[in-house]
Amino acid sequence: MTNKNFTTTCPLPIEDYPNVMLAHGGGGKLMKNLIEKMFIPAFSNDILETQHDSSVVEISGTKIAFTTDSFVVNPLFFPGGDIGSLAVNGTVNDLAMSGAKPLFLSAGFILEEGFPMIELWRIVSSMKAAAEKANVQFITGDTKVVDNGKGDGIFINTAGIGLVETPLEIVPKSVQSGDAILVNGDIGRHGIAIMAQREGLEFESEIESDCAPLNGLVQNLLDENIEIHCLRDLTRGGLASALNEIATSVNRQIEIDESVIPVREDVHGACEILGFDPLYVANEGRMIAFVAPSDAKKALEIMNKHEFGNGSVQIGAVTETRSKLVTMKSTIGATRIVDMLSGEQLPRIC
Amino acid sequence: MTNKNFTTTCPLPIEDYPNVMLAHGGGGKLMKNLIEKMFIPAFSNDILETQHDSSVVEISGTKIAFTTDSFVVNPLFFPGGDIGSLAVNGTVNDLAMSGAKPLFLSAGFILEEGFPMIELWRIVSSMKAAAEKANVQFITGDTKVVDNGKGDGIFINTAGIGLVETPLEIVPKSVQSGDAILVNGDIGRHGIAIMAQREGLEFESEIESDCAPLNGLVQNLLDENIEIHCLRDLTRGGLASALNEIATSVNRQIEIDESVIPVREDVHGACEILGFDPLYVANEGRMIAFVAPSDAKKALEIMNKHEFGNGSVQIGAVTETRSKLVTMKSTIGATRIVDMLSGEQLPRIC
Repeated sequence: MTNKNFTTTCPLPIEDYPNVMLAHGGGGKLMKNLIEKMFIPAFSNDILETQHDSSVVEISGTKIAFTTDSFVVNPLFFPGGDIGSLAVNGTVNDLAMSGAKPLFLSAGFILEEGFPMIELWRIVSSMKAAAEKANVQFITGDTKVVDNGKGDGIFINTAGIGLVETPLEIVPKSVQSGDAILVNGDIGRHGIAIMAQREGLEFESEIESDCAPLNGLVQNLLDENIEIHCLRDLTRGGLASALNEIATSVNRQIEIDESVIPVREDVHGACEILGFDPLYVANEGRMIAFVAPSDAKKALEIMNKHEFGNGSVQIGAVTETRSKLVTMKSTIGATRIVDMLSGEQLPRIC
Repeated sequence: MTNKNFTTTCPLPIEDYPNVMLAHGGGGKLMKNLIEKMFIPAFSNDILETQHDSSVVEISGTKIAFTTDSFVVNPLFFPGGDIGSLAVNGTVNDLAMSGAKPLFLSAGFILEEGFPMIELWRIVSSMKAAAEKANVQFITGDTKVVDNGKGDGIFINTAGIGLVETPLEIVPKSVQSGDAILVNGDIGRHGIAIMAQREGLEFESEIESDCAPLNGLVQNLLDENIEIHCLRDLTRGGLASALNEIATSVNRQIEIDESVIPVREDVHGACEILGFDPLYVANEGRMIAFVAPSDAKKALEIMNKHEFGNGSVQIGAVTETRSKLVTMKSTIGATRIVDMLSGEQLPRIC
């Protein structure tokens, strides 16, 4: 091999973690480290360094958002969705988080030899239905097959492109002191639905994933000229990680109030049984919106009218303090720091 | 599950092949069947039905090409390249085959728990070098980790977007009777380099993959106003499959001449030992160009001046005959039909 670039030292201290661990894909500190100390230095450019859910570029005068996600969820089918609907909504939501109107998706399938064709059809049918619901089209694709035992049934990658029409720059660095932080409903259902299915747990009522496309909801906010500064969907690492990423990005302290964060009773119960904190559990149809405080009330009204925003509330605000911390006033009145996830809480939830 | 679409019958007769086989990803008849009878009917739209290496769409007046490919090559490192350079060049070439100028790529990593971090860095370094060579930028990415034993070290998906500036519509349906068919050099090296590495074969001289970015070569043809009707890179299924796909698409017979198809002596020898036909062996830096016959000579001159086109020749032409066949005049003067690959020749070569 004559790759001269390889001779340069890897910015990630490889001796600390010589092998990839599950936590490197978990949405917490180790994944952040891998991205910031390996991928970003290698592929260094201004756009990548924005570190947002999707990247926005101007091509021949047209502003295009571009994003990608691979889906390795286990199990493939779960209450409220499957790997197919997840693969559509995940990428649609990443585009929507830049204020883009999602238009076109690609589908890359990695199939394991021996995977039942009928399950593939079930997944493809689900992708079709989800794409129709989100009003996007699959226009390109690829299929690879790996030997039996070298995959896990099916992995799906979707990439997506969307059109950015808003003049707003919806990125972490647009967040300002005083911004209201809104969430579009109760948190923690997706992760718990997956874990319950995986562990064979049964609850009185079935907990369904919140998996949903958020582009319509975001479009409604844009149409009503809400001054949105940043949007972030609450996937791997949950609400806590999303808030920490933004707080770090803008070097401000974020304060949230536990008593107003919506968590369903059954999700609370399941979290207690499983030893999880709902703040860190993944969602696939939940986002936080950072909006100008003067627009918060109007934004909540718009969100609550939408089928995927019914239950929207303000959970906190961005402060003046330059601490990069996320703090939470607990239900008993104490204040605690909400840190990023260090290890792996829920592997393969998306 | 309440997916109403699933209740419709799958257009693919599942009872014939109830489980996914390696050949479903091999670039031959089974893969074609899967795409045409499952993916296209499910995701049906005019753009997808073009069935080209990348799809071209107009967004707000700008013509954008979009494509995706997953890479599952085994082994990860081989003479002349690795999964990283392959992942860049494969997607760059798919964009170039639409006459687009490749601009931005996404990277989706599926890592297996336990994969050595140093190998990841080697691959990432190779991607960086290949992206610089092809003049494209990675602007978005994703990392997932699967449990040990549920993957195979690393799989990489890249999607890409490019700008289409040419007024030409470079797609199979633009091919015309009389078109000259040009190839940009000797065929079969990539597949043989992979197989030799996998089987531990040693030849007198090492056979290196032809893995290379073809966007510069295509741009030179466009800059000189060559009347290009179609371009197709010769990946899975090799030259034979690419020709068959185009012949079927335009309902014309294609005639090629074995004596002028460039195949290196050592590749010929390796093919004989391994029982392969070079016409079906995958390449990663080779393409065929269908050009107006009046432009063939000039096109070959331009191609031969480029570092990745040195060795370009005309190998055949499109006829008037409406047979959808590919026929080849053999070196001994006989004519035979060159069919599509039915089974699996070389699994996981990209």
